[in-house]
Amino acid sequence: MLHLETTCPDSAVAKDIARAALQRRLAACAQIQPEIVSLFHWQGAIEDETEIRLIFKTHEGRRDALITLIRDMHPYDLPVITWHLVATTPDATEWLLEETR
Amino acid sequence: MLHLETTCPDSAVAKDIARAALQRRLAACAQIQPEIVSLFHWQGAIEDETEIRLIFKTHEGRRDALITLIRDMHPYDLPVITWHLVATTPDATEWLLEETR
Amino acid sequence: MLHLETTCPDSAVAKDIARAALQRRLAACAQIQPEIVSLFHWQGAIEDETEIRLIFKTHEGRRDALITLIRDMHPYDLPVITWHLVATTPDATEWLLEETR
Repeated sequence: MLHLETTCPDSAVAKDIARAALQRRLAACAQIQPEIVSLFHWQGAIEDETEIRLIFKTHEGRRDALITLIRDMHPYDLPVITWHLVATTPDATEWLLEETR
Repeated sequence: MLHLETTCPDSAVAKDIARAALQRRLAACAQIQPEIVSLFHWQGAIEDETEIRLIFKTHEGRRDALITLIRDMHPYDLPVITWHLVATTPDATEWLLEETR
Repeated sequence: MLHLETTCPDSAVAKDIARAALQRRLAACAQIQPEIVSLFHWQGAIEDETEIRLIFKTHEGRRDALITLIRDMHPYDLPVITWHLVATTPDATEWLLEETR
């Protein structure tokens, strides 16, 4: 299983991307987390902004298409998208593959 | 160190499972995160539901027993349980092993 | 990319550490998550406390200096600091390296 995540400016954007991904069977589920505060450099100053963390449970076979979908729908020029492998139980793997057929 | 996580329908269930795991020394600590919104397919439609994310800091030697405990206590037929290795500092490793003796 | 995280007693501490890390270019960004409830053993009982999760996006070259900074600034005797590698897109890698030059 892959946990693939990005951040969105608000939960409406996060929900739109999540629904589109599920409709296209690019992930088994999406988790929209409550507001986080992100700090980063912007034009010489350290800015902080509230964002929404969006996490997908997917697999290698759907990863590239999911990344493309996020890029196409995301309002940022450069949405930071990261992913990492997680282990899971056999029945959850079956559910993952069933939901992304 | 292993970060092992699942989602629960509410924080009462999450706290019960967390306490049981700590009492049996199956994890050094548990983190109950605030409400997330999970989207997933259910009987032909995309549903969304609030859930609670529950994360344990544990290790390989306690993993299977912790998974069994979660399955036994969890109200879902199929709680999605995932885990991945994280690196940490020597003193945190000592704390982890001490708390799961 | 490395996701390096710890927990803090409150968001003021988290923000101080995050700003210091960004000022020293030890991370490209920091995410301060809303309150979590942590459960752990303390002097024979299971305690629960609200904490703030602080996550940095950084890389191997900045990791040790970031860990040292967290230890120096953190009010806990033993802040549990963990990190794991995540994959990301080429443009996000460029952004990461640019922001930690």
